[in-house]
Amino acid sequence: MTEMRVLKGTKDYLPDEQALREKIREDLVQTFRLYNFGPLETPILEYYDILASKYAGGEEILKETYTLGDQGERELGLRYDLTVPFSRVIAMNPNVKMPFKRWEMGKVFRDGPIKLGRYREFTQCDVDVVGIKSMAADAELVSMAVDAFERIGIPVYVEVNNMKLLSSILEVVGVEKSKVKNAILVVDKLKKIGPKGVKTELEEKGIEKIDFNLLFGLLEDGKTKEGALKRLEEKAVDKSGKEGAEELRELFKYLKRFDVDEIVRFVPSLARGLGFYTGTIFEVYAKDSKMSSSVAGGGRYDEIIGKFLESGKEYPAVGISFGLEAICDVIKGMPEGAVRISSGLKVYVISLEQMDKAIETVSMFRSAGIEADIGYSGRKLTKELDYANKIKVPYVIILGKEEVKAGKLQLRDMNTGEQSLVSLEEAVRKLK
Amino acid sequence: MTEMRVLKGTKDYLPDEQALREKIREDLVQTFRLYNFGPLETPILEYYDILASKYAGGEEILKETYTLGDQGERELGLRYDLTVPFSRVIAMNPNVKMPFKRWEMGKVFRDGPIKLGRYREFTQCDVDVVGIKSMAADAELVSMAVDAFERIGIPVYVEVNNMKLLSSILEVVGVEKSKVKNAILVVDKLKKIGPKGVKTELEEKGIEKIDFNLLFGLLEDGKTKEGALKRLEEKAVDKSGKEGAEELRELFKYLKRFDVDEIVRFVPSLARGLGFYTGTIFEVYAKDSKMSSSVAGGGRYDEIIGKFLESGKEYPAVGISFGLEAICDVIKGMPEGAVRISSGLKVYVISLEQMDKAIETVSMFRSAGIEADIGYSGRKLTKELDYANKIKVPYVIILGKEEVKAGKLQLRDMNTGEQSLVSLEEAVRKLK
Repeated sequence: MTEMRVLKGTKDYLPDEQALREKIREDLVQTFRLYNFGPLETPILEYYDILASKYAGGEEILKETYTLGDQGERELGLRYDLTVPFSRVIAMNPNVKMPFKRWEMGKVFRDGPIKLGRYREFTQCDVDVVGIKSMAADAELVSMAVDAFERIGIPVYVEVNNMKLLSSILEVVGVEKSKVKNAILVVDKLKKIGPKGVKTELEEKGIEKIDFNLLFGLLEDGKTKEGALKRLEEKAVDKSGKEGAEELRELFKYLKRFDVDEIVRFVPSLARGLGFYTGTIFEVYAKDSKMSSSVAGGGRYDEIIGKFLESGKEYPAVGISFGLEAICDVIKGMPEGAVRISSGLKVYVISLEQMDKAIETVSMFRSAGIEADIGYSGRKLTKELDYANKIKVPYVIILGKEEVKAGKLQLRDMNTGEQSLVSLEEAVRKLK
Repeated sequence: MTEMRVLKGTKDYLPDEQALREKIREDLVQTFRLYNFGPLETPILEYYDILASKYAGGEEILKETYTLGDQGERELGLRYDLTVPFSRVIAMNPNVKMPFKRWEMGKVFRDGPIKLGRYREFTQCDVDVVGIKSMAADAELVSMAVDAFERIGIPVYVEVNNMKLLSSILEVVGVEKSKVKNAILVVDKLKKIGPKGVKTELEEKGIEKIDFNLLFGLLEDGKTKEGALKRLEEKAVDKSGKEGAEELRELFKYLKRFDVDEIVRFVPSLARGLGFYTGTIFEVYAKDSKMSSSVAGGGRYDEIIGKFLESGKEYPAVGISFGLEAICDVIKGMPEGAVRISSGLKVYVISLEQMDKAIETVSMFRSAGIEADIGYSGRKLTKELDYANKIKVPYVIILGKEEVKAGKLQLRDMNTGEQSLVSLEEAVRKLK
């Protein structure tokens, strides 16, 4: 007999949990739509050479790429992110109107070791705009994220920084150009491991002869965004640093215009790990949550698409990625009822040998937009009420001979146990 | 340089097309919810032995299953349907409450030859209930399908039949028991190829010495469902045939209760190809469409899950599968505007050096639930209007110095070219 099991790093989402994921999906999609991002769907199967091309995900990720052949002996792979397919779509559709704003939500695959919170098959949700150089696009994405989490019901704050400025600062305090990328990965941990931890790790990487005091002084948050920015700008005197500072100044201006200035903190040490980003970066965190990981994050990557396509063209781009798993985890840690899932069953109809009327009733509820169900088993009332209790439905309709004769419904509030004889219209009004 | 391309049999859905698919998804999910079907999500990667187990999809489908290994040298496959994972979920969660009602929408994969309308990677959408023997469940699914297509905006009709009855009829007219399954596949084509075609094909399969006149007489639709059923019941005298007739009688009763009786036709030759189904089968067709293929279909398969799990337990089950591609094709063949896609951009805000006010305005629209966008390029008015024309947005807001001074917005109807000076509140009311 075949043993029934799922592959480690993949998972079944049963209805209770999946309803939460569906609610998040709906809230996100609603928000994307209001901001005029269009939906895109790309295949999970890609030619392997596209996934492996020089400027795609890089060597690390390629090691974790699932590969497979087919009957035509083609070399294929399962996509590991949504950015490669997005870049491919832009290459294959040169007439697409710019700015091109799209979202995609779909499964991606990584054949890697499974640690806490790492999956082999998981859902990514990316929102990107290509074709806008102005920091208005970056600010608009931050505004959209704030709106999305407000809709979902999670209070958040946002951290922003600029990669050009951070790189420049690191050079200013004495980090060799060739070691800046390494240093960034360490500095990114400043909030977690503190200056001491950062110093130790930098030294371990052979980054020792630098002005640590100046570094940690510059990387302090400062009282105001503008104040901190000014302090950094004065030090970051090279072209790239100045550009980064100018971009941040423009970003701050647009954040005010989008009325999200107060939700956004300027964190000069923020880096978002990878060397993917070229300018703005931002990270969205749930307030008052025990979760240390972010619920969304993104930034500007002006060079990636052009390099990937090897076309010599420039594709200014900025994007955000929502972490579906992280968002679910935050909600699960919140007090029950803090986030409303509207998709639950509202009423369960029990027929006491009055099936005609019972089906008519359940159909009327559904037509009125009320989630309704009905029992077909013909079980006794006590058994049916037991069942209703188990499935946690808030209301039950009981339909016996008497009720049908009177043209009424027995409506039972399952929380209080109260029952009342009501008309169908009254029941609809109450349940809506 | 890597050639940018997609694998044949897979496809990118660009925003215009994907918006339609998203609309269908939303309408379906809304309907599933009203009928109390919960969402389920299962992995795309499965252990190969589960996909290949005796009572899964069968040998034909196994030939088309993508297989792959991983770093742990496990033998994996990409799922080819949603029924195997569903059965696996039931096996692994013995405490799941019955009846278990779930829907799942997700990608499935088949490494087969590509003919018209056959994909290697495509989306399936299945809705199933396990644990109800009563034909009420079958009728409820039909009712749900009718509601779903009403919501989508496609007028449909439904054909129903019962596999037990059809099998019995074939034996009655002289088909050997061992050839009934083969005969069913041919008889299923009666509507397409007519009695002559069916006779020829049956004879080709060595099914010759049967009473063709009786067969075609019995398989006529008849004036009423009940009339046709009676005629068949009188002939189908074995136990299984009688059971099938009884099930149909019960189904017809429930279809009346769900008020979908008039939409449903009884087609005694209907078979739905595969030998998967054990009782009720139904097929949903778009009315007045050139499409001959169905937009949804399903039936009862009481034996499959139990056999798959080899548990000796019985799992009465009935399900329906919606054809996303077929539904899209039907809508594309309908007059423009017949099906409303609500997800389009409603208004585009053009700033003539009034970015502060423009961003405030676009944010107000979005807060009011109106899909809105804004240009950041600083292009001249004529260029911005050209762009607005190209993206087919119905309204444009023009914000210049004058408008800001007057505290008003210039609202332009892009269809008529009419412009009017309105307040933000008036604009919101108009665009809602």
